[in-house]
Amino acid sequence: MKQYRVGLIGTGFIGRAHSIALQGVGAVFPEVTAPVCEILADRDAAGAARSAAAMGFARSTGDWRQLVRDPAVDIVSICSPNYLHREMALAAIAAGKHVWCEKPLALDAAEAREVADAAARAGVVNLVGFNYSCNPLVRVAQSMIAAGDLGRILGFNGRYFEDYMADPAVPYSWRCERRFAGAGALADLGSHLIDMAEALLGPIESVFARLETLHGSRRVPATGETRPVENEDVARGLVRFSRGVGGSFDISRVATGFKCGLAFTVFGSAGSLSFDQERMNELRFYAGADATGRRGFRTILAGPEHPDYGHFCPAPGHGLGINDLKVIEARNLLRAIADGRPAHPGFDVGLRVQRVMDAMERSHAAGAWIDI
Amino acid sequence: MKQYRVGLIGTGFIGRAHSIALQGVGAVFPEVTAPVCEILADRDAAGAARSAAAMGFARSTGDWRQLVRDPAVDIVSICSPNYLHREMALAAIAAGKHVWCEKPLALDAAEAREVADAAARAGVVNLVGFNYSCNPLVRVAQSMIAAGDLGRILGFNGRYFEDYMADPAVPYSWRCERRFAGAGALADLGSHLIDMAEALLGPIESVFARLETLHGSRRVPATGETRPVENEDVARGLVRFSRGVGGSFDISRVATGFKCGLAFTVFGSAGSLSFDQERMNELRFYAGADATGRRGFRTILAGPEHPDYGHFCPAPGHGLGINDLKVIEARNLLRAIADGRPAHPGFDVGLRVQRVMDAMERSHAAGAWIDI
Amino acid sequence: MKQYRVGLIGTGFIGRAHSIALQGVGAVFPEVTAPVCEILADRDAAGAARSAAAMGFARSTGDWRQLVRDPAVDIVSICSPNYLHREMALAAIAAGKHVWCEKPLALDAAEAREVADAAARAGVVNLVGFNYSCNPLVRVAQSMIAAGDLGRILGFNGRYFEDYMADPAVPYSWRCERRFAGAGALADLGSHLIDMAEALLGPIESVFARLETLHGSRRVPATGETRPVENEDVARGLVRFSRGVGGSFDISRVATGFKCGLAFTVFGSAGSLSFDQERMNELRFYAGADATGRRGFRTILAGPEHPDYGHFCPAPGHGLGINDLKVIEARNLLRAIADGRPAHPGFDVGLRVQRVMDAMERSHAAGAWIDI
Amino acid sequence: MKQYRVGLIGTGFIGRAHSIALQGVGAVFPEVTAPVCEILADRDAAGAARSAAAMGFARSTGDWRQLVRDPAVDIVSICSPNYLHREMALAAIAAGKHVWCEKPLALDAAEAREVADAAARAGVVNLVGFNYSCNPLVRVAQSMIAAGDLGRILGFNGRYFEDYMADPAVPYSWRCERRFAGAGALADLGSHLIDMAEALLGPIESVFARLETLHGSRRVPATGETRPVENEDVARGLVRFSRGVGGSFDISRVATGFKCGLAFTVFGSAGSLSFDQERMNELRFYAGADATGRRGFRTILAGPEHPDYGHFCPAPGHGLGINDLKVIEARNLLRAIADGRPAHPGFDVGLRVQRVMDAMERSHAAGAWIDI
Repeated sequence: MKQYRVGLIGTGFIGRAHSIALQGVGAVFPEVTAPVCEILADRDAAGAARSAAAMGFARSTGDWRQLVRDPAVDIVSICSPNYLHREMALAAIAAGKHVWCEKPLALDAAEAREVADAAARAGVVNLVGFNYSCNPLVRVAQSMIAAGDLGRILGFNGRYFEDYMADPAVPYSWRCERRFAGAGALADLGSHLIDMAEALLGPIESVFARLETLHGSRRVPATGETRPVENEDVARGLVRFSRGVGGSFDISRVATGFKCGLAFTVFGSAGSLSFDQERMNELRFYAGADATGRRGFRTILAGPEHPDYGHFCPAPGHGLGINDLKVIEARNLLRAIADGRPAHPGFDVGLRVQRVMDAMERSHAAGAWIDI
Repeated sequence: MKQYRVGLIGTGFIGRAHSIALQGVGAVFPEVTAPVCEILADRDAAGAARSAAAMGFARSTGDWRQLVRDPAVDIVSICSPNYLHREMALAAIAAGKHVWCEKPLALDAAEAREVADAAARAGVVNLVGFNYSCNPLVRVAQSMIAAGDLGRILGFNGRYFEDYMADPAVPYSWRCERRFAGAGALADLGSHLIDMAEALLGPIESVFARLETLHGSRRVPATGETRPVENEDVARGLVRFSRGVGGSFDISRVATGFKCGLAFTVFGSAGSLSFDQERMNELRFYAGADATGRRGFRTILAGPEHPDYGHFCPAPGHGLGINDLKVIEARNLLRAIADGRPAHPGFDVGLRVQRVMDAMERSHAAGAWIDI
Repeated sequence: MKQYRVGLIGTGFIGRAHSIALQGVGAVFPEVTAPVCEILADRDAAGAARSAAAMGFARSTGDWRQLVRDPAVDIVSICSPNYLHREMALAAIAAGKHVWCEKPLALDAAEAREVADAAARAGVVNLVGFNYSCNPLVRVAQSMIAAGDLGRILGFNGRYFEDYMADPAVPYSWRCERRFAGAGALADLGSHLIDMAEALLGPIESVFARLETLHGSRRVPATGETRPVENEDVARGLVRFSRGVGGSFDISRVATGFKCGLAFTVFGSAGSLSFDQERMNELRFYAGADATGRRGFRTILAGPEHPDYGHFCPAPGHGLGINDLKVIEARNLLRAIADGRPAHPGFDVGLRVQRVMDAMERSHAAGAWIDI
Repeated sequence: MKQYRVGLIGTGFIGRAHSIALQGVGAVFPEVTAPVCEILADRDAAGAARSAAAMGFARSTGDWRQLVRDPAVDIVSICSPNYLHREMALAAIAAGKHVWCEKPLALDAAEAREVADAAARAGVVNLVGFNYSCNPLVRVAQSMIAAGDLGRILGFNGRYFEDYMADPAVPYSWRCERRFAGAGALADLGSHLIDMAEALLGPIESVFARLETLHGSRRVPATGETRPVENEDVARGLVRFSRGVGGSFDISRVATGFKCGLAFTVFGSAGSLSFDQERMNELRFYAGADATGRRGFRTILAGPEHPDYGHFCPAPGHGLGINDLKVIEARNLLRAIADGRPAHPGFDVGLRVQRVMDAMERSHAAGAWIDI
């Protein structure tokens, strides 16, 4: 099997996560040949060189366009701020590269459609970084829902709480500016929740939402001045899935005390499932068919019965981590490339998520339900 | 201190809860004289007599109007189906009795206002059965919020999940009919959640809601026929408190696996609080002021530092139960009568809750935000 | 059914718990006639009179011997410090009264045998206050074990952690003195754990133990002097049940952070059960027979399927409290008296528990296994 | 920095864990140069070749002695069954290689001493695979204890429960035979618990233990015959640390329902700490110094404030997994080699753990406390 060469753009949180996943995936998944960390791009050449040394990349560049054009590169990993996703993805697609782009796919649905269409036309493999739905326990949940283990689905309750901007003293950053980040909590956290909801229950067909900015302005560290925050800290919504199920969303980046609180409950007439990323190795399952007086939510610990857990560890309950989810994502990408078929979750998923986000923003503005 | 005489109407779930509380309150709260369980009313004389013997009442009647008029009765406890609350309460008030009425106070806000106004005019002590907000840990939460322990309040996330109608085979009952129950999950469960939310954060000023009936018809046991369910199984909403805080509600009587899932999180800039009635002896508190690397939600176990826990038990963590909350409610009523001042939560609270419920129903119909 | 008259000795923590249970039991259990709180004894007449007024007793006395002899009294409740249990119980038995005695039954096994034998000879109904094993969920556990739901029993892990003496500044009290308390943590907490273990798995046949006093001396509040603590803060042990099952005990009154941490896990070849009094409305059950990949500990919430929960509340998951366990205990006593048969857990249980405690003390002294 | 070359012996559970860690460590820890997976040994040449291809090793051999002698190899990873550890480690040490050996270090303390002494004399870097104590949260616990955050240490409660042999149908394997495995649950699970206890509280000075084999014989898959199990399924013990603290151990490989239940509580006069590997990203901390009525166990989520979490992810609460602990272990080894200083936990730790295990076995035989 061919050893693919990766060009990675970005050296922050998620750039390092890609790098760790790319270097780890070969040891975990024998079906995949370990890729080569070929070249790393950052804003300037010196920083890129330092990061390449630290992160284990062979070469580096201060110019991402050069990376995208590099004939040695098979795959481009895009780990830059949101506003660059579209441009970089289009350039990579134009250069015939496979693309692994972080979420959200773009700043809005129009951009996302442009990118998804370009990728589809070019026939390159594409993947968007929705790592949480790659959790083996989420796949269990999906298959249980699909198999009818919960009976008729009656509702969805989802939330994604983090608190990285709860403190008003958190400084102004690109995340506060629409031209750089697009939406706020909705784009950063809500995109994951929407992906999760649709992964479990299929497409959302209509939404009602209200957005709020709790800390209206923040201090710019460089200048000391105070600037208005242009996007929302909180997004709350009601949703309606195409399959005729209703649900609620609560999304916040100012949810003091929560660190990675992506959680959902799916209610069915015969059972329910509950999950919380802060306890990512546990799936809670209530089986209505259990004997009277013996019913209760089971805490199912992730184990080798839940693909792909067994590739990481043959013993149950020993625990996967967030980076392991990225390894699964990397495997999805590399296997799709090797097999010449689409990867999942692809840019089509990224586009669908973006459309729901856009609809939530429009609903807030209109104070009305919006169809997608 | 005078020993008050109680006439209790209703012998079901909540009627027995009142009876247990009335007979227990004197032993728990020395400040209160144990009331006399004077007379019990049920639909027919024979059943009332049997129940009176079983429940420890001195006399019984098949005619609640007789109970209300009984000169020996000081306090009327109303534990009948929702549609009777108004009529019974008005009769009791007219007879100059103090009234302990179960929630919801009435079938709609107009009725509730009629009842609340009558009670206010008559100057009788009145209390509505919002037992959950009588929990000592909820009082702790209230005082922490009021004292600023959470900093600026940033949001509210509340839900009340039960599953008593999740099974489509659950038969048709008065709870399914508007003329008897009024709203569905909203009235039965949502009323508690609204009370809790307002107890913590003050009045709600506007709402957006969507109601759903998941099991559209149910079988009538007596006849075997199938009849349409007239009220909602699920109510989801977004809310806005007068103090300028937003929140979300998720209410369901078809939430498979949940038995008494009244839960909330209050987010503040300096801390957060979380509570779940299924673990009613635990309050979770995240203090942003804790040292770096040592922060986390504390699980505070109810103890004698949290009034009125110490009246039940001087040792912390030993656990109160649902009936103990009713005992606190009974104490609130009896003490207010003895002191000649209003009881809390009074009919004014019952009315406020009903207005929010009505607004949620209207919002559903209008597909728009409704001010209260 | 006859209305029994109770004389209660003691007005502290557990005296009030008896009083609350006696006044509440009639409303909860229709099968039982509410007893009369006839007379209360305390150390002096004035205090007893004040307490009787506060606790709802008709009469009072400063002399417990008078109470025991009182012809109006049918039942004597003994809620005094440990060292008085034997003398009071013997006096009550001699007077032909039924006896409800708090745990531990006596200061050592010899005393306990004297009391148990006297009660048996006199034919009076007797009950010892092991409230925790009266929990409906503990009865579920018992019946599951008995029914073979766990398969072959493989082991027991039990602990009882509280922290009421963790702080070295907690003053010296009668609990620190052998002549008043007998053993320390072993008597106060360990007695409950031993009762629980034997209630689940039958008699213990041999033990090995080590006792420790962590805070060797404490200050006497009245005098300011420091006195040596004469009994243990911690008792750890290994046990062997007659049925051929092994287990471990960990008992501490200096377990900082734990308030009522009586917990156990019973392991079987086909399943396991876990319980923690701090979450007394939850029983955790792992069923090996659940489908592969769907196994996990179920959190079973107490509900009406678990007798006697339904007497308190017909709705599941609404929660019992510690005082409700005492109500069940009171019902056990009153029903046994009415039926003219032994109550459970009787003085025979109190004796058995005391023998295990004694054996643990002797094992500590000998550094060897001790048979019981 | 030099790129070290690793020879790995063993291709099972833990062999793959080493391989994954070795290939991942460079991307996570910039301070470390990614090692080369040079050569893999398995029982036969063909299997080794297949595994090498699957696991990403350059070369393979069916003869571990050849691997050990290979001049290209700097580090030997020993992931074979227990009985081979001594021989392989001695050979690797004799060949001047650094050694990463899985736990338990050997079959008994005499063997372990031989290996530890040889490594010390040879001056090679050595590490034993106690991954659980490499958890960032365990390091937090260590530093809190050392800093006095818990006040005076009052006790230790530890257990390690798994259920991989709970089912009597689990077949006979090398783990059941003394000559291959040495002790049973004690060696496989207890070794981790002992390491953890000593990592937190220092050396254990005396033990009392009882061992049990619950399933006395098992079926040999190849032959269908039934053979007696030669070592224990359960080991329970009382321990005494040199610092004057007591504790209890409960260790079982037949603990139905538990998958990786290595858990401890450390009690102090000013606070307590609790940890459970099944929720390896949570440390529970009770601070006695918190305000009255606001105390409770805090659930501290692992985050970048807890070294080395931040190397894996800069965002708190996102979760590490079991393989990440192995990456930390690999870093410890590689950094020690680069720095020319001892690695931790080294063979000295492995020896100390083995001595406690041996003492527990001797205590069981003698029915008496054994000093170490």
